[in-house]
Amino acid sequence: MYDKPIQDYYDNDVSQCYGCGYSNTHGHQIKTHWDGKKSVTRFLPKTYHTAIPGYVYGGLIASLIDCHGTGTAAAAMAEKRGMDLTTTNAPRFVTASLQVSYLKPTPTDTELTLTGKVREITERKVIVDIQLSANTTVCAEGTVISVEMRPQQK
Amino acid sequence: MYDKPIQDYYDNDVSQCYGCGYSNTHGHQIKTHWDGKKSVTRFLPKTYHTAIPGYVYGGLIASLIDCHGTGTAAAAMAEKRGMDLTTTNAPRFVTASLQVSYLKPTPTDTELTLTGKVREITERKVIVDIQLSANTTVCAEGTVISVEMRPQQK
Repeated sequence: MYDKPIQDYYDNDVSQCYGCGYSNTHGHQIKTHWDGKKSVTRFLPKTYHTAIPGYVYGGLIASLIDCHGTGTAAAAMAEKRGMDLTTTNAPRFVTASLQVSYLKPTPTDTELTLTGKVREITERKVIVDIQLSANTTVCAEGTVISVEMRPQQK
Repeated sequence: MYDKPIQDYYDNDVSQCYGCGYSNTHGHQIKTHWDGKKSVTRFLPKTYHTAIPGYVYGGLIASLIDCHGTGTAAAAMAEKRGMDLTTTNAPRFVTASLQVSYLKPTPTDTELTLTGKVREITERKVIVDIQLSANTTVCAEGTVISVEMRPQQK
């Protein structure tokens, strides 16, 4: 586990993501916490992030699941490698495949909680299963397959 | 086929979607055109819709595919039913499942083109296969399974 959200350990060069980058002032700047077994992100939608009034649009849910997935992959890989993130940056993952099942309407007036568990981790690929909940009700589930960026991609 | 984008035929009560609703002034307001065989949406990302600088973040791609999918479903169903959209609103679909494969980095400085084809259409469910291209390069593919909103959902 790490003291800070995994995104805070990203290299500045790869911190521009609209979903999770700390350098993107327009973006969501989600923060993913990893306790060594599971990951957690909390996010309060804006009132205009609507599908129909009062409910979150699917694109935001997909975006949160996407970035929560790559963040979880980075944290799990850092831990697997025994990386000291106080002295080196976290690895940076990008999404190869995203799947989302929308189970129930997701309210906009409630903080959403995403949890993630690693299903599979290999040398450069991580598969993460994610649940998105509002008030303990699971509203969406998703799976993110992500791969580590190569140095020349940075 | 219909003269206007399918979203322009949505009932005002269901026109608030951040991705495709004409009433959401904060949103993307995508417009999906249907020629009777395939659908097309064009969208120019903002410079801040980044994953890493110069490339579109996955959440936007998922959002565009999602709303292009529900729009295509609405148009295909309206046509199947022989609806006259000059006198009645289009049906409104919501997403049950979204799958996106990210094939290549997607540039932010280029208009993106999404095309959609209906794989399956039944009484209330439509499955749409979608490609997202930049400068004729297919950067992402996706599949949207959507279901028609019941009247009480409106």
